[in-house]
Amino acid sequence: MAELLIDEYVQDGWKYVDGTLHCDGLRLERLRKELNDRFGWAASPVFVYSQSTLIQNVRHYTNALESLGGLGVLSYSIKANYNPRIIATLREAGTTMATCVSGNELQLAIQMGFPADQTILNGTGKHRWEVELAVRGNSLLNIDSLFDAQLVITVSRSLSVKARVLLRINPNVEAGTHPYLTTAHAASKFGVDDTLVDKVLDELRGAKENIDVKGVHVHIGSAITRVEAYADLMIASTQTLNKIRGSGWSGANIINLGGGLAVEFSSPLPSGYKGSQEVGKGNAWTKGQKAETEKHKVTTPSPKELVGAVTPLLPDNVTLILEPGRSLVATAGVVVTEVLGVKCSGERTFVVVDAAMTEVIRPALYGAIHPITYLSLPTRTQESCVASIVGPVCESGDFLAHDYPLPGPPPMTGSALAVWTTGAYCASMASNFNLRPQAMEVMVRGPDSYEVIRRPQHLADIIRACL
Amino acid sequence: MAELLIDEYVQDGWKYVDGTLHCDGLRLERLRKELNDRFGWAASPVFVYSQSTLIQNVRHYTNALESLGGLGVLSYSIKANYNPRIIATLREAGTTMATCVSGNELQLAIQMGFPADQTILNGTGKHRWEVELAVRGNSLLNIDSLFDAQLVITVSRSLSVKARVLLRINPNVEAGTHPYLTTAHAASKFGVDDTLVDKVLDELRGAKENIDVKGVHVHIGSAITRVEAYADLMIASTQTLNKIRGSGWSGANIINLGGGLAVEFSSPLPSGYKGSQEVGKGNAWTKGQKAETEKHKVTTPSPKELVGAVTPLLPDNVTLILEPGRSLVATAGVVVTEVLGVKCSGERTFVVVDAAMTEVIRPALYGAIHPITYLSLPTRTQESCVASIVGPVCESGDFLAHDYPLPGPPPMTGSALAVWTTGAYCASMASNFNLRPQAMEVMVRGPDSYEVIRRPQHLADIIRACL
Repeated sequence: MAELLIDEYVQDGWKYVDGTLHCDGLRLERLRKELNDRFGWAASPVFVYSQSTLIQNVRHYTNALESLGGLGVLSYSIKANYNPRIIATLREAGTTMATCVSGNELQLAIQMGFPADQTILNGTGKHRWEVELAVRGNSLLNIDSLFDAQLVITVSRSLSVKARVLLRINPNVEAGTHPYLTTAHAASKFGVDDTLVDKVLDELRGAKENIDVKGVHVHIGSAITRVEAYADLMIASTQTLNKIRGSGWSGANIINLGGGLAVEFSSPLPSGYKGSQEVGKGNAWTKGQKAETEKHKVTTPSPKELVGAVTPLLPDNVTLILEPGRSLVATAGVVVTEVLGVKCSGERTFVVVDAAMTEVIRPALYGAIHPITYLSLPTRTQESCVASIVGPVCESGDFLAHDYPLPGPPPMTGSALAVWTTGAYCASMASNFNLRPQAMEVMVRGPDSYEVIRRPQHLADIIRACL
Repeated sequence: MAELLIDEYVQDGWKYVDGTLHCDGLRLERLRKELNDRFGWAASPVFVYSQSTLIQNVRHYTNALESLGGLGVLSYSIKANYNPRIIATLREAGTTMATCVSGNELQLAIQMGFPADQTILNGTGKHRWEVELAVRGNSLLNIDSLFDAQLVITVSRSLSVKARVLLRINPNVEAGTHPYLTTAHAASKFGVDDTLVDKVLDELRGAKENIDVKGVHVHIGSAITRVEAYADLMIASTQTLNKIRGSGWSGANIINLGGGLAVEFSSPLPSGYKGSQEVGKGNAWTKGQKAETEKHKVTTPSPKELVGAVTPLLPDNVTLILEPGRSLVATAGVVVTEVLGVKCSGERTFVVVDAAMTEVIRPALYGAIHPITYLSLPTRTQESCVASIVGPVCESGDFLAHDYPLPGPPPMTGSALAVWTTGAYCASMASNFNLRPQAMEVMVRGPDSYEVIRRPQHLADIIRACL
């Protein structure tokens, strides 16, 4: 089988060698064994992150932004994955700012080495303490509404400082993604409605000595496959920037286009496996988008294409901020989960694994499709097994995939599966439902080097705050 | 206004007095103030539980089961709410067993005073250590599949003990509820398929010295409004019980019908408020069910009706176990959340509150409708404000309700709302998404007595396990 598999790079950092998955050169079956020796049952499921993929994902952006000279800035949206070592790795790889959506994220960003004035606080509903923290540290604050403007004014006055703010607009652009992930259409809770921009600017002008409007912020949502959407955002943002300049902040010079670039939900499944076309590759990430993809042959745009699409529209001497989350971390993470058993019910085969909606809620919440493959590939390449891959949580919503074509025969109890593209919005959305401990996280740094970046949680950790 | 509101009991434990909400006689505006003085911003949102409602919910079951003499047993399904003080309160009120779906739940049940042999371990995917814990403690284990049977046999043999088990069957009964909450139809991951019962019994018989099959377990799902469904389960269970007796376990004498009884999603909104008909009462809990309710005038069955429906079908000298979760705790809990501001976008009004999908994920995950009212009622009773009530989480899936008729004018910043029927499957499904701390929980015991049963979580708590 070796001939078939060697040099099958599909995704950097992840590679099948001799039929078994390696991350940054480390054989993951070895990792499983070592973790099991150290942590016992608590070692599975485990989030495994590829350091090289994280670094490469950052470089895709920084290289793309280089064309703007010093005017292109990369800011990591921490909500995608808040693990401190992930944040630190992204910073060391060249991410210069951190986008935060809560006071806790802001505190953590600063703890992990981002200068306070290189952070952004975003959010529809900010608590006063969060605004105080941001204003004191000279963060950029996004003004999301009239009441948000009033809160920032009140805080800045009481602290006698000048807050640096961006005006978050709602340009009413449809993103063509899952309704929960689209954030810039008319019925969205995010941003200042077009008809209210003047009113909010008036409010801010009334506090001009305490408010410095630096520019515009916009964010269209997640999993965006059309770079044209970003061009639309750039046009709307430039109009608002001109309005801000005309309202007395002539130095306003920032356009923050947010994040949201889609990523390819893929696995490096070698060719030759039945079903590998279907599960190995593809940017389909929800059922709806899958149909869309098949119809229109949508491809996932690169950071370079994104920057290329908006650069011609960027006004002179204006700084462009991009705030990716998913596209920096999603492809760097895999959930490795043990097969607890295979059962049949009616016509259906269930592969019961020890990962669940508690680690990967995206299939239940958004209908997301994460590719799933064997950690060690079966030798019978021409078989395939259509199964529901489900977790142990006592709820039918607990599934990783339904009617999924696993490449090979049904897996053995004790073997492991890899759930792909789970570096973003998986660990950061985890819960303790069913009193399940939050899963371990491991960062792989090379063939012989890895680090446990979240130890297993114990019952005492989960109920620590209960009295 | 006082005349209108006094003596408006709709739900025991919860009552508006002089236009402001009381829990077990405690004015919740006073509670808010005292928590704020002690904990600052971390005091909101907060889960407030009514001890009297918990006790009353238990009594509804224990009274109903009394008709069975000693043969009716109440077992609390911890997954609905795992707060240790809630578990202890339910036990002290008369719940004799605890149903667990993980080893951690089992450990906690025992810590909170349930004798190990009065616990049940249920689950589609049990880890070996969980089975060992249950077998050593003489818990009842539900056998969910052939591979589950094999694991229990292996463990019992290696420990040289006799495990007490129930056979979990999948009777293929449609529950008429949300697909994620229905667990006993043909395509469900739960239980042993009809066609495989003999095979599983054969497997268990091969290890008869280590396995004592005590009876049958079945669980139809959640939010069940038809007691007839339980009668169907009883018939299927009795057939399997007879088969078990005929397979060599003649003493098998337990039928465990699981839980799942629907509860009324309601608030004690006084009459006279515009919209109170719509939001004050009703067992509608998802959009689908709401339509259903309106069409068929479904009412929520009581434990007495449930027991009444199945008792005539219960074989002689067989113990009936019921495993409610939601119907013991849902109505005992309310989320009190502060209004951060009101904004408009397009045609839509957004009331932004500090609670979010991190505390109440059921609207996003199941389309659940939780009634929402003002903590202190406005005096202008004839106004109403249709709004989306949303949280601060940066995602459009973060909403508590859309197009919701709040009874009264739009709320003021700093005022509070109550989100009803949130005692079950809210705190236990909470996440730290956006690095939001898990919300405080408070148990009210009387007009001047309450206890903080979960202190606010700090950033350090959330990242404690990260290295």
